[in-house]
Order: sequence, then C-alpha cells, then structure tokens
Amino acid sequence: MIDKDILQNFIKRSFAEDVGTGDITTISTVPQGTKITGKFIAKETGIICGLDIAKTVFDYTDSEIKLSFDFSDGDLVKKGDIIGEISGEAISVLTGERLALNLMQRLSGIATNTNEAVKKISDYKAKIVDTRKTTPGLRVFEKYAVKTGGGHNHRFNLADGILIKDNHIKAAGSIAKAVQGAKDNAPHTLKIEVEVESIDQMNEALDAGADIIMLDNMDNATMTKAVEINAGRAILEASGNMGEKDLQSVAKTGIDIISIGALTHSVKALDISLKFN
Amino acid sequence: MIDKDILQNFIKRSFAEDVGTGDITTISTVPQGTKITGKFIAKETGIICGLDIAKTVFDYTDSEIKLSFDFSDGDLVKKGDIIGEISGEAISVLTGERLALNLMQRLSGIATNTNEAVKKISDYKAKIVDTRKTTPGLRVFEKYAVKTGGGHNHRFNLADGILIKDNHIKAAGSIAKAVQGAKDNAPHTLKIEVEVESIDQMNEALDAGADIIMLDNMDNATMTKAVEINAGRAILEASGNMGEKDLQSVAKTGIDIISIGALTHSVKALDISLKFN
Amino acid sequence: MIDKDILQNFIKRSFAEDVGTGDITTISTVPQGTKITGKFIAKETGIICGLDIAKTVFDYTDSEIKLSFDFSDGDLVKKGDIIGEISGEAISVLTGERLALNLMQRLSGIATNTNEAVKKISDYKAKIVDTRKTTPGLRVFEKYAVKTGGGHNHRFNLADGILIKDNHIKAAGSIAKAVQGAKDNAPHTLKIEVEVESIDQMNEALDAGADIIMLDNMDNATMTKAVEINAGRAILEASGNMGEKDLQSVAKTGIDIISIGALTHSVKALDISLKFN
Amino acid sequence: MIDKDILQNFIKRSFAEDVGTGDITTISTVPQGTKITGKFIAKETGIICGLDIAKTVFDYTDSEIKLSFDFSDGDLVKKGDIIGEISGEAISVLTGERLALNLMQRLSGIATNTNEAVKKISDYKAKIVDTRKTTPGLRVFEKYAVKTGGGHNHRFNLADGILIKDNHIKAAGSIAKAVQGAKDNAPHTLKIEVEVESIDQMNEALDAGADIIMLDNMDNATMTKAVEINAGRAILEASGNMGEKDLQSVAKTGIDIISIGALTHSVKALDISLKFN
Amino acid sequence: MIDKDILQNFIKRSFAEDVGTGDITTISTVPQGTKITGKFIAKETGIICGLDIAKTVFDYTDSEIKLSFDFSDGDLVKKGDIIGEISGEAISVLTGERLALNLMQRLSGIATNTNEAVKKISDYKAKIVDTRKTTPGLRVFEKYAVKTGGGHNHRFNLADGILIKDNHIKAAGSIAKAVQGAKDNAPHTLKIEVEVESIDQMNEALDAGADIIMLDNMDNATMTKAVEINAGRAILEASGNMGEKDLQSVAKTGIDIISIGALTHSVKALDISLKFN
Amino acid sequence: MIDKDILQNFIKRSFAEDVGTGDITTISTVPQGTKITGKFIAKETGIICGLDIAKTVFDYTDSEIKLSFDFSDGDLVKKGDIIGEISGEAISVLTGERLALNLMQRLSGIATNTNEAVKKISDYKAKIVDTRKTTPGLRVFEKYAVKTGGGHNHRFNLADGILIKDNHIKAAGSIAKAVQGAKDNAPHTLKIEVEVESIDQMNEALDAGADIIMLDNMDNATMTKAVEINAGRAILEASGNMGEKDLQSVAKTGIDIISIGALTHSVKALDISLKFN
Repeated sequence: MIDKDILQNFIKRSFAEDVGTGDITTISTVPQGTKITGKFIAKETGIICGLDIAKTVFDYTDSEIKLSFDFSDGDLVKKGDIIGEISGEAISVLTGERLALNLMQRLSGIATNTNEAVKKISDYKAKIVDTRKTTPGLRVFEKYAVKTGGGHNHRFNLADGILIKDNHIKAAGSIAKAVQGAKDNAPHTLKIEVEVESIDQMNEALDAGADIIMLDNMDNATMTKAVEINAGRAILEASGNMGEKDLQSVAKTGIDIISIGALTHSVKALDISLKFN
Repeated sequence: MIDKDILQNFIKRSFAEDVGTGDITTISTVPQGTKITGKFIAKETGIICGLDIAKTVFDYTDSEIKLSFDFSDGDLVKKGDIIGEISGEAISVLTGERLALNLMQRLSGIATNTNEAVKKISDYKAKIVDTRKTTPGLRVFEKYAVKTGGGHNHRFNLADGILIKDNHIKAAGSIAKAVQGAKDNAPHTLKIEVEVESIDQMNEALDAGADIIMLDNMDNATMTKAVEINAGRAILEASGNMGEKDLQSVAKTGIDIISIGALTHSVKALDISLKFN
Repeated sequence: MIDKDILQNFIKRSFAEDVGTGDITTISTVPQGTKITGKFIAKETGIICGLDIAKTVFDYTDSEIKLSFDFSDGDLVKKGDIIGEISGEAISVLTGERLALNLMQRLSGIATNTNEAVKKISDYKAKIVDTRKTTPGLRVFEKYAVKTGGGHNHRFNLADGILIKDNHIKAAGSIAKAVQGAKDNAPHTLKIEVEVESIDQMNEALDAGADIIMLDNMDNATMTKAVEINAGRAILEASGNMGEKDLQSVAKTGIDIISIGALTHSVKALDISLKFN
Repeated sequence: MIDKDILQNFIKRSFAEDVGTGDITTISTVPQGTKITGKFIAKETGIICGLDIAKTVFDYTDSEIKLSFDFSDGDLVKKGDIIGEISGEAISVLTGERLALNLMQRLSGIATNTNEAVKKISDYKAKIVDTRKTTPGLRVFEKYAVKTGGGHNHRFNLADGILIKDNHIKAAGSIAKAVQGAKDNAPHTLKIEVEVESIDQMNEALDAGADIIMLDNMDNATMTKAVEINAGRAILEASGNMGEKDLQSVAKTGIDIISIGALTHSVKALDISLKFN
Repeated sequence: MIDKDILQNFIKRSFAEDVGTGDITTISTVPQGTKITGKFIAKETGIICGLDIAKTVFDYTDSEIKLSFDFSDGDLVKKGDIIGEISGEAISVLTGERLALNLMQRLSGIATNTNEAVKKISDYKAKIVDTRKTTPGLRVFEKYAVKTGGGHNHRFNLADGILIKDNHIKAAGSIAKAVQGAKDNAPHTLKIEVEVESIDQMNEALDAGADIIMLDNMDNATMTKAVEINAGRAILEASGNMGEKDLQSVAKTGIDIISIGALTHSVKALDISLKFN
Repeated sequence: MIDKDILQNFIKRSFAEDVGTGDITTISTVPQGTKITGKFIAKETGIICGLDIAKTVFDYTDSEIKLSFDFSDGDLVKKGDIIGEISGEAISVLTGERLALNLMQRLSGIATNTNEAVKKISDYKAKIVDTRKTTPGLRVFEKYAVKTGGGHNHRFNLADGILIKDNHIKAAGSIAKAVQGAKDNAPHTLKIEVEVESIDQMNEALDAGADIIMLDNMDNATMTKAVEINAGRAILEASGNMGEKDLQSVAKTGIDIISIGALTHSVKALDISLKFN
C-alpha cells in the first residue's frame, strides 16, 4: 500500500514532465467529446504490478474514465491476456496512456524478476529483500513491486534503518566504535546492522552487539561457516552481486536474508500495450 | 547539457527521498570533523555518464567536498579504472554516496547500451533515437545519457513534437483528418509525424503532408519498399521492439532513424563503486 | 484547452497572492450563511475570453457556487450585455471575485485585440501569431486568448521550437553554422526557423536548409521580393513592431505569417463587472 | 524593495515557463565557452524600472554574467540611450534575455504611465495610488513599478487593508453593520475604508466611523461637496475609471487620493532591446 | 475561519512529516477492510478548539471516515466529556489520529488559556490580543485559537500592520523620523503603532501622529497616567510579560488593549484522547 | 545535527509566513544602508538551544550579517548573560529578528525542561526520550532540542519505528496477531514495540517476540514487578503523563526508558531578547 500523498505528488510531477504545456498532438487531432473504449494487453508473460497505480493515473487525468482490471497486483498474466478495459473521453485517455504504461511496465518487470528469485529459494527459510539501489524518485514504487513479487523490503531510507558499511567503519575507526556510536545516539527503535567482509569482522560485530550482520561478497563455504558461528545470535544477510549468483546454493548455506540490488537497478520492463477498439 | 533548475530540483527531491529525517547511521557513528579521501572505481567496462551530475550531487551535500574525475561523460572506462577521487568531510560524502552512484550507474548503463547500438550501424546513415518510454521523473537525464552514448533525442514531451499514433487515428477518424487537424491547430514550428503500419497508410500520410513517417513493426523487406516509395519526401523512422532486432539489417533498408524504447525502459546499470582509502 | 494542472497551480498561487492570510473585510463584515445572486456585465464591447477559467476560479473557492454563462469563449459581447449569473455563499463569491475579473478582463482584452488584427487581413492567407513576449507566469493563458481571438500560436517555450535570432547568429559565427548545429543536435521533430534582416541573409538561410524564415523589420517592398525569391520553399514570417504596422499591406506582400508581440505585451483590459442583485 | 524570496520564486517559476526542458536553439547552435558582450538600448523614452530585477534574473541564469547599468530605477531614459552593458557566456545570456526584457519592458511601461499621472497633479496634495487590478502573480512587481513612477500603494492583498465595497454592503445589510463588523472582528491595526456612491452613503460611513471613504465614480462637483462635508474627518479617495478622467480637475476637488486601476490592468510595454556587439 | 488553502497545505505537510514513507505499524498489523468506531474524550476541562480542523485532517486521510462532534469550537468541555465519535477504515483512522490530536490539544490549550485571561478582565473595556510570538508555521491556527478563546488578533505578519519598536527607532534616528517614514512610504490603509518606554516617548509619538501607542513594560501607575495624557487620541496597548502580570489591575488603568505573547509562546496542551470502542 | 534541506525549507516557509508581502514597518522607517550592532541577552536561566539555527536564519535573510555566539547549544546560560553579538544592515536584522527569537526561545525552553528531567534521574540507568506529540512542522527541531537537553529520541515518524498501541491491538484482534503481522510485513531492520496496560499483556507481548515493551500508565509497584518478570528480555519503556510523575521513583523501578510527551507538547519558552546598541 503506497502512501496516498506520495502517489499523488508523483503522478502530478510525472504528468508535468510528460505533458509540458499540453498534449499538442491529441488536442489538435481529436475532437473534444470523442469517446473511446480500449484494452490493456499483456505482450509478455509475467507478474502484473501497478494496476491500482494506473487507476490513479487515469483518475487524475479525468475522473470520468472507467477502468476495470481482471487481474490484481501479484497475479500472473500470460502473453496475450487482456488485463483490463478502459473507456472514456479519447483526449484524456490518450494523454494519460504513456505514464500509466511506463509505470505498469516497469513495476511488472520488477515484480516478475523478484518472483523468479523468490521461487528459486522456496525450499529455504531465506527471504529475498531489496536495497537502496532504486531509481531516484521511485523508491516506494519499486519497493512495492518487490513486495508484489513476493520479496521483502530492506530499509526505505537512511533514517529508518542503521547499516554500518565499510566506509563507516573506516571513518569511525573500528566496528566496535561504530556500533557503540549507534547504541548511544540512534533511537532505540532501530536494529543495528553491520556489513562485514570476513569471519573475523563478523565476530567483532557480534561482540559489539550487532542485531544484523550483512555478509558482503562471501563465498558459500564462508557463509556456511558464518551461519554456524553465529548460532542464531544475529540475523544474517547475504549481499554483493546476488543478482548474478546461484541463489539456491546461497540459500542453502542457512542465511536468513538475501539482498539483491539488481532487483531495482537493472530492470527489464514487461511489455504491455493499450489498443483502442 | 541539462537545465540547471531541473537538475537542482531533482537532486533536492532525491535527497529528501533517500535521507528522510537524517542519515542516522552516519550521524551516530562518524564524528563531525572526520575527513576522508576515496576513489570511484569502474567494476565493469562501458561508457561513463553522469560525472557532472555526480559533482552537483556532492556539491549540494557539502560545497567543500573536492571531487575530480579523470574521464569525461562519453569516455570509455575499463573494468578496474579509477574514474576519479573524492575528499572531504566523511559525514557529507557518506550521505551523498548512494544518490551519486545510483545516478552514475544508471546513466552509464544507458550510455553504454546506446553506444553499442550506434556502433552497430555506423556504416549507415540511420540515427539511433530514444522514445518517451523513460522512467517517470528522469526523462531529461535518460535522454542526456542517450546523447552521451552517441544517440539522438526524439521529442522530450507531448508539447514539443507531433506524433499521430494508431489510437489518435482511430479517434480522429482517419490519417488525413488527423494530419489536417495538426496543420490547422498546432504551432507551425513543429513537424508532423505519423505512425503507420502498412505501405497504404504511409501513402495516405504522405498525401496528407506528413513530415515524418514512423514505420511501426514492419519487416525489413517492407521498410526497403517504403524507402523507395517515399523517395526522400518524408523522414522515415523505424520503430517497434527495435531493442530485439538486428539493427544492421534495419539500417541497411535505408531508413533515416531507428527509435528504441529499450534504451531507457530496460536498463542494466554499469557497476561503479566508491571506496575510502 | 489549457492543461488542467497548470490552471490549478496558477489559481492556487494567484489566490495565495490575493488573499494572503485571509479576506479580512469579507470575513469581518459578512455573516457566514449569507447567500447572494449577481450578474457579470460587459462594460465594453469585445470578444469574451476566460469564462471556463472563471468557472474554475469560483469552483476552487467554493465548489457549491453556481455560475452560468450565456456566452462562450470567442463570442462577441456588447456593452451592457449580461454575460452570466452567479449565486452562492456571499463570502466565497466576494473572495473569488477579483481574481476571476482580473483574468477575464485581461484575456478578453487580448482576444479582442487579436480579433481586430485577424479581421483586418481576412482576405489574405497570412495567419496572425503571437510571440514569447508574454507576461511571466501567464503564457499558456495569454496564448489561449490569442487563439480565442482567431490567432495562432508560435512556440510556447524555448524547448518546442527552434528560432535562430541575430544574437545566436553572432554567437554561432554564421547562419550556416547555426542551422547546421540545429540539424546535428536538435530533435528531428522540430522545424528550424531563422530570423533575417536582409534578402542576402534569407538566401543564406534557405541554402542552409531553414524551414521557416522570419523577416525582421523589413518594409513591404522587400517582403514582396522575399516572397518571390522564396518561391514556396520556406514558410515566411513577418515580424518587428507589427502592432504598429498597416497589417493589410503587410499581408498583401504574400507572407505566410505575421507575428505580433503587442498582442500580449501591451494589453488593454476589457471592462467587466460583477454586481450583486 | 521587493522581498528576496518572492523575487527568487518568481524568477524560478518564470524560467521554468520559458525554458521548458531546455533552450534547444541556443544549446544546439552556440558552442559552450563562447563569450559575448552586448548593450541594453531604450527604443522609446520613459521611466526605467526593473534594473535590479534584471540583474537578479541574469545572476540566476549564470552568476558569472557581468551586468552594469548607467541608470537607476525611476530615472528617465530617452529613445536611443544605452541603458547598460552585459558580458559573459553567450548561452547563459541568450537563455535569460527574454525574461529580463519582458520584465523590464512591462515594469517600465507601468512606471512611465504612473509618472505621467503624478506629474499632472503635482500642484495638488492628492496622491496617485494603485489597486488590486494587477496581473495575477505579478502584484508586488507591478506595485513596485507604481512606486518607482512616483505613485503610492493601496493594500497589497485582502489581508492588509479593509475595503468595504458595494457588494459587501449588500451582503452585510448596511454600511453601519459592515463597519461595526470590521471594528469588532478585524485587527485594530487596520484602517476601515468604505466605498460610497453618494453623499448620503458618505455620511452614513462617516457616522459609522470609517477612516477612509472611497468616492466611486462621482463627478467633480459631487466630490468637491464631499470634501467640504468631510471637513478632514476621513481620508477621501477618488475611484472609478480614473485612467480616463482629467486628473487635474479631479485633484482640484481637494480629495486626498486618486486610485487608478489602469496603471496596472492596461499596460503599454516600454520598448527595450538587447544587442550583442 | 481559516483560509482553505493554508489549511490544506499545512495538513499535507504535517502528514508528510508524521507518516514518512508509510505508517508501517498500521499497514503491517491491521488488515485492510477492518472497520472501527471510537470516541474522542476530554481528559481535562477547558475550551475546545480545532474540531473543524480535525475533520479536515481525517477527511484528508480518507474521505469516507465519519466524524461527528457534540461540541463546537469555543465550547467548554469538562473532564470525561465525550467530544465526538469517529467511524471508518481502521488503517485510515490510525494514520490520522496523532496529527488530529496534536492539533486539537495544542489549539484547545491556547483557547483555554486565552479564555482565562478574557474572563479576568471582563469588567473592563480592554481587549486581550495576541502577538507574533507564535510557533513558526502555525500562526493562523494559533491566532484562530486566540479568537476562539474570546481574544482578538494583532497583525498577522509584517505586511499587515505597522509597529515601530525600540530597534526601529534606534535605526531610524527618532520616533518622529520613523513615524514620518511610515506616513510617506506605507499604504494609507494601515494604522501606525509605536512602542514606547516612557511618558516622554508617548508624547513624542502622539505629536508625530501615531494611531496606536504600545506601552512597553510600564507599571500600572505610569499606564494610568498615560491614559489620562492620551485623552482618547490614540489607542493604548499594554505589553511586556503580560502573561505574568495581574491582568485585572492592568485593565483597571483604562488602557484599550493588552497583548500577551505567552498566549502562544508558552502553551500547555489540553489532554484529549481517542479510544476505539 | 538537523538535515540541511529540512532546515532551509523550514526557514523559507517561516519567513513567508512572517514577512508576507514585505516588512512594511522596517522598509518604511529605516534607510537602506543603516548599519547596527546588537546583543542577544538571556532574560532567564536555562539550557540554550538553536544557536546554529539562528545563524542560518540570519544568513538566509542577509548573508553579510555577522553573528557570533559565546555559547554552544547545550550550554547553561544565566539570566543577564550576553549570549552573542550581531552586526549588519539594520533592515535585514530587523526582518529576521522575530523568527530567530521565536525558534531560540522555544527550543531553549524544550532543552531546559528536558535537562531538568535528565538531571533528576541521573543516578539511574533510565533514559529520557521524547514522543510524536510534537508541534506539526517542527518535529526534527523539537527532537533536536530534546537531545540538546540530554534526552534521547524515540522514532521520528510512522515509518522508522514499529509501535503497536491499544487501538492497533483492537483492530488486529490480539497482541499476538499484531506482532506476527509486523514480523511478516515490516522491514527486518526495525524493532517491534508493544504498548501494554497490564502484566498479562506484557507476558503476551514477550511471548509474541516483542523487542520493546511500553508500560502505559502503570504505577511504580507494577513497573517494578514488570522489570522482574521481563528479566532483561525486552527493553522496557515507562509512558503516560510522565510529565506529571515523580521521575526519580519511576526510574528507581529499573525500567530502561521514560518517554515524556510534555517535553514537546507543553513548552514554556525561555525568554531571550535582542537589543540594538
């Protein structure tokens, strides 16, 4: 569920970007009062996402447009499926079309990709989560698509999660100092996560009282060892080019979480089109 | 060259998205006054894009950060290359890092991809151009990356180009009516482009006085024929899943322009990292 | 047709300007619940413009205000005509009155003035068009008024038309270089217009491949000659203090377009008042 | 002196309006790094206004532009005078030119017009003041131009002055009730002004305790009588199409203030141009 | 009556502050579709204020929430009173709860405090007024609460009242110079108020033509004398830590107005809670 | 450390609120170019807070104002202390004065009050924390003041902490269901806090796996028992009108955290003044 205001502001800004001073083609060629009906068609198979967002887009353009979908976010659509139908003033539909499609295609691409990852590790306890490697301005939408595809969300921004990375450790002086700083200064409502590159660093983080350990770019053997040593004390998160790894073998190590930047930084849009009848 | 205001507003909004009420990890763990130096490193080979934007991002975070690059937008960077160096207040660099990297990685991914397409057809007159299938909120940035990769830009929004598509033709009644509407009502400063699906439609568009014809999803044989019939009257643009076509054979048909939605709707980020010394 | 969002933002901002922290006179003197009816009266003869905008203004103030007009934008109203009737909560009507009148009066002034120009040259093919000499913040409204008066629109901003003027030519080095730059770098969807001050410059622009030639401050004899030489190759636009010229004799030269800055930079408002019954 | 923030916001918004996604002509035709010098030239005689605003406009575009004026706001410039000189990056100057000129021309037009009115009544005590009939979005600028021309300002918005007009009186029931409402409910820091159409109404307003009386559309004889009856109790303000009246004879009646809507609602721009050397 | 736009913008901004990227507790724990009913309960006795504002808050969250109050702004509520009832989607109510309560509690605290001051001096002609010592961003709301409690409003901002204070007098050179400056340069619609610290300064201000005299931190004996000397010429306003003075004895001096900064700068919230049934 | 952008936006908005169309008193009475020096003086003893914010306020008004403080945020100032000195253009200082003082006074009031609470329980391990009962629009500032006074921060908004309250429990069905929902749906980076009203509820929350337990309105005996039963498993937070409780006896129960709404909802400003020399 995306915050109503964030969605409205996003649509307003995106329309301003796409429409400029006016949709000159549509205004010049289509008489006011022309009514149309049309269909949204899946040109590829995948997990659909962004249907409610598309409704809000068209409602924003013209509150009298009727739009009904035969699927819900998270459903599988197959190539050729009619996803839904639209009817209303032609000028309004034409003006809103591109933004709605751009969003549906991108979010469905993310959901589809996430879902493939989730299915691969369904026999293990590990969860697939996203990262902050999202497109600037689209974070809540892209994280929504990850959830729609069956994944989970890591922190939304720098304020709602503590993640001490290599550069923080260098700047703070040591893992111990960084964790102590977080304990002293950050709200008690946030868990403390530390990124480590070795078993030694993991031990240092556990001793300092980290709640979550991010195992950065470790091979599976090392992660298996990390799981044993941790013995359930902290949550363990595997990270580092996970988009290119064999996820099953990663999950098999027993880690709790696999975070994948590629879910949002390298997206292949799902092809969807709108055809007037 | 991206408009200064659009860039500033974008950075402001993107920081608000990423920082929220504050970078709690950095503030809690790194003492004010800690100075660092670090390097931007290419983890993959490709065309670099977004260096000036990254400078603006860090300048926005803290105008005392020093950032120097050994490359310029459009240059080829190879895996392992040190792209540039940064120094300044650790807190500021850590807070700006993710936004700068997210932008550089995405734009470099687009430039790299565009450049591959451009190189493929370098023996032909056809130009590679983008579309409006961009990420909402990032259009001017993504179109800049296309140019950086050697491509050209199609219209930026619905106000600065006339493109009569199949749905407009249906709503207007015919190609002839739609083109006449554009001539009567739109500014005389814009060319009139018509999307056609057949040679017959092309002839209708040419008769109506179209300046540009978009050949939608035609096979190469049909496009070759279209080029002959057009005989230089209108600009011819090939379109429709061009991201998956053999671009050389398309260019060989003699068309003037190839527009590729995938340049911006399906992007693979170029991996770049920032490491503190 | 003005973009819905641009209109809403404009009204919002204009109300903030006019109302400040509140309409203290109305709030202090008129009891809540007082209902009124009133009439909009033309105090001068002219072309009415801004009726839908006025409706949006009052709808914004209070969605329960009823407002019906007996005229449409573009109609001739005569001194003394009752343009429309309003009824509703007195406080709301009083608060919205000034903004609605300021807009109607200004836009009707522009439409009236444009219409006089259009009628003068009705025997010729030339079109009357506006310029970018509009009031900052009101461009789309003022250009709408020009269309309402029977004129046409030149480009809306610096992004949706290419117009190479004397200062560009000086900075670029020559007409040929400037036109070539536009061909290489600007989207292929825009025509290229060049401002010239002599027949020689016109020839240079035609040779370079300009689509439109703006004849700046030429006398009628020179323009007649320009029309002959051009022989239909480019669109010819007469420009330069056209507000003070004999438009009929200008149109008679055979040029295609007459652009008049005074349509929007020197406006005489049409007097309209609102009287409560 | 215009509030810094209001000016910055106005310029930002006006540039967005004029530049859109970018000044495509300038970017495409002028090489980065091209430096120019140029002159602002008065093409008509009048009172110059907006020089500091123009400086802020160009400073906003590019803080390295140098701009020096040989006149100050309020000075008389004669046809042919060189008002000032500009130098800097050609691209920046070309992009800022139109907005700067649009503002200078409009504000100088208002100042010139106001100054003519002020000079006409210089032998009398009456002051020339403006109204709320300003262009939406430009109020503080237009009121600044009125002051620059030697006029004075009426209230800036509905919150900083009480003006009970005919429609308020109808809605409130009577002048007495309306004035009492203002006394009871409005801040004690504001004077109470009442618009009257007859000597009887004036007497009613004076009895109610009005501080200022606006004499609406009265002939000079009635106003002379009003001045006698008032005997210095309230400030008297003449109003109603004053732009078309013989101001000297109005001032001669002895009223204190003449308010003229046409100063801002019907403006003739003063012609100013920028020529590169 | 608070300006509709100011209220909407305030709520929008306040929600963004409180909700961030989403009410993660509510979204995660409460199933969509869960309906609740609940009661607003006064946990202390006082003057209620902000009921319409609370309605707008919940209407903003979800326009289908039903909210009915048994009291109106300005009414006395007693400890334990049920102020009103709410019903609707649980998620929406939970998300809006804190903002609505924060506002109601604060504004009711101000109204209650103001009302105590007003009642204390009900036997005298003096009015209780507020100051500009309000919380940044909440001025119109806090001034509304002062009115709701029976007080009156001083100026709303620096533009709608002239108040010459000690620092202005020092900068201007003298009271006489400062008052003359205001007469020459400020709109004639504003009264001129001067802050004085002695009877001598009061005489100087009266001679200069001040409309209102603010008696700053004077003891009651001096104020009594000031009232005599003034003899009804100017409005007299007592000021300076009035929140800690014996208001009855101040009012007894015969001054017209008592302005109290503490009404808004030192507020004790009135305790109100929302309990689901 | 307050996020730079949040501070700038806040100051911009607050100035717009306070200045309106312009500081008419200052502009009208003080000649441009008048320079002043002045002192900030503590009129009461307390913990100073907001000095850097005040610097940013004056820097925003006029970057040439010099402002130096002899104290830092968190220092004790005594009645009569000169806190700092200011010098610069009189007009700028007068325009910025009120906003700077309003902020310093309010934040210092909060810091002073917090510090009293912190000192009271300095012999115990319990920390003083704030709540979301802050003034809308000022949250980050008020939470900064709490830290400056020696307190700690609870969550900043609904997105960066999970707090399951009585109304959530009712809507979810039970504590167990609510906690499970949070575990399934919320990011793994957030701790889960549950508000309980009895030992039974505490046990239920502990069994469900809550990380933090808020003990709502419990007497000290019950809290002592809760500490024993908890045996270090969850963090324990005392809450409910803590502003009116004997904090020492609360801390003595052994709880970890005491959260006090009154720190921010019922603030007494610390009196500070600015006097020109």
